[in-house]
Amino acid sequence: MKRAELIDLIRERKSFLCVGLDTDLDKIPQHLQGQPDAAFLFNKAIIDATIDYCVAYKPNLAFYEAMGVEGLRQLKLTTDYLHRLGKRAFLIADAKRGDIGNTSRQYARAFLAPESDFNFDALTIAPYMGEDSVTPFLVYPDKWVVLLALTSNKGAFDFQLTEDKATGRRLFENVLERSRQWGTTENMMYVVGATKAEMLADVRRIVPDSFLLVPGVGAQGGSLEEVCRHGLNKDCGLLVNSSRGIIYASNGTDFADRAAEEARKLQQQMAQWL
Amino acid sequence: MKRAELIDLIRERKSFLCVGLDTDLDKIPQHLQGQPDAAFLFNKAIIDATIDYCVAYKPNLAFYEAMGVEGLRQLKLTTDYLHRLGKRAFLIADAKRGDIGNTSRQYARAFLAPESDFNFDALTIAPYMGEDSVTPFLVYPDKWVVLLALTSNKGAFDFQLTEDKATGRRLFENVLERSRQWGTTENMMYVVGATKAEMLADVRRIVPDSFLLVPGVGAQGGSLEEVCRHGLNKDCGLLVNSSRGIIYASNGTDFADRAAEEARKLQQQMAQWL
Repeated sequence: MKRAELIDLIRERKSFLCVGLDTDLDKIPQHLQGQPDAAFLFNKAIIDATIDYCVAYKPNLAFYEAMGVEGLRQLKLTTDYLHRLGKRAFLIADAKRGDIGNTSRQYARAFLAPESDFNFDALTIAPYMGEDSVTPFLVYPDKWVVLLALTSNKGAFDFQLTEDKATGRRLFENVLERSRQWGTTENMMYVVGATKAEMLADVRRIVPDSFLLVPGVGAQGGSLEEVCRHGLNKDCGLLVNSSRGIIYASNGTDFADRAAEEARKLQQQMAQWL
Repeated sequence: MKRAELIDLIRERKSFLCVGLDTDLDKIPQHLQGQPDAAFLFNKAIIDATIDYCVAYKPNLAFYEAMGVEGLRQLKLTTDYLHRLGKRAFLIADAKRGDIGNTSRQYARAFLAPESDFNFDALTIAPYMGEDSVTPFLVYPDKWVVLLALTSNKGAFDFQLTEDKATGRRLFENVLERSRQWGTTENMMYVVGATKAEMLADVRRIVPDSFLLVPGVGAQGGSLEEVCRHGLNKDCGLLVNSSRGIIYASNGTDFADRAAEEARKLQQQMAQWL
């Protein structure tokens, strides 16, 4: 999906919500557990219930890999369904990959290639291995790298905030500054956790025009208002993710209705900021 | 596998060679291409040909994911075969994962849990997200985290060598220093690229007793001699990986024999250092 198309979608749905499909067989409603293709059935119900309120879906690969080979098949059923849907959404594989160039090319083939099993629009990438671990993901037109900058977890403080003696920049700032030269605002976004919303201003100084994928609103404690205040730019420039707060809003037979309700609440707050 | 068992295996086979199963359907011999289970058939032939000369196998997940859902099935056939084999080897999933705690737990389930589809001994992890992205992998007895410290690629220079203003340490040294407190020498190893063998001495100052997984000998240009000189410790403490140099030594019908030959050459050089 092109940047302009994503911005159109955000304006049309008055939403910059991304729904995280972190589907855990231990947490889905009892009446689905044990059914064939349970993870896909759950995802399909969540997608049908939320697609009018969001612009993106983000399955985290870990949850599918935890189900083994079968989990990847469930993920493919899910992305196949999303591709067949009349309504478009931006599809992010939250996989946090990254390896030497020769290997990153294979990951790009796995998730971003139009002929791949999944054909995602974007893939999250860890920056530790540097430029040649990232650029192989930028070869497919209209596909995106979502690079980790400042993550939402406690461990973000271990290395991401260390200050570089040479440049005076913190590591996440170095990542932003350097990687700006690897891609463009048309094919590269950044992960910035909502739990560190006060640092969004620092992020915006370096990448004013880039889209940011912001996890951590909801279960992890981040505030949508803070994120909007410091993160919005003239094209919106934000995709705010909620996973558990939406998909596990109920674990009864009303799970899809409750997911729709939670997604709609966030969408309505977002509409006021657009 | 326990550390003591790994050391015994190294002494018994007089080898610390790890064979990288980076199986690419475009590169395997023509006579296997197009056959059902081609990737597994290739891996099985490589394993049978090399197991007497190595102590570890390291499939890189990217190559299997690039084949889609089917690729994960081929990987499972491969690990199933390795578990059934009379001869034991240390099995490393080269996956470079790492996510918030809740999610890392799922990756651990996917690759390290005894009941998982793969049941690997170890998993490579990227350190960018810090402690709570790493410790969830340390819950399974006798299973290992292999944390990226100093990688073999050019991009390693982008961030891994930046000097922390507060501690004076370079980022890879900070990673080593901090992560020593997250695990032990019984459940944590480090990736240090052979292409930066001169820095192995710096690594050894911080983690003298840890095992190091060393990629980059062969196709990437690293020298086994340099690695041994700076990296060996009293328990050996090294697993040196070669992928392309062994598995693609020939792409004819003699590929397994040629792989055995290349593995044997490395094993004989290693025996002299033990």
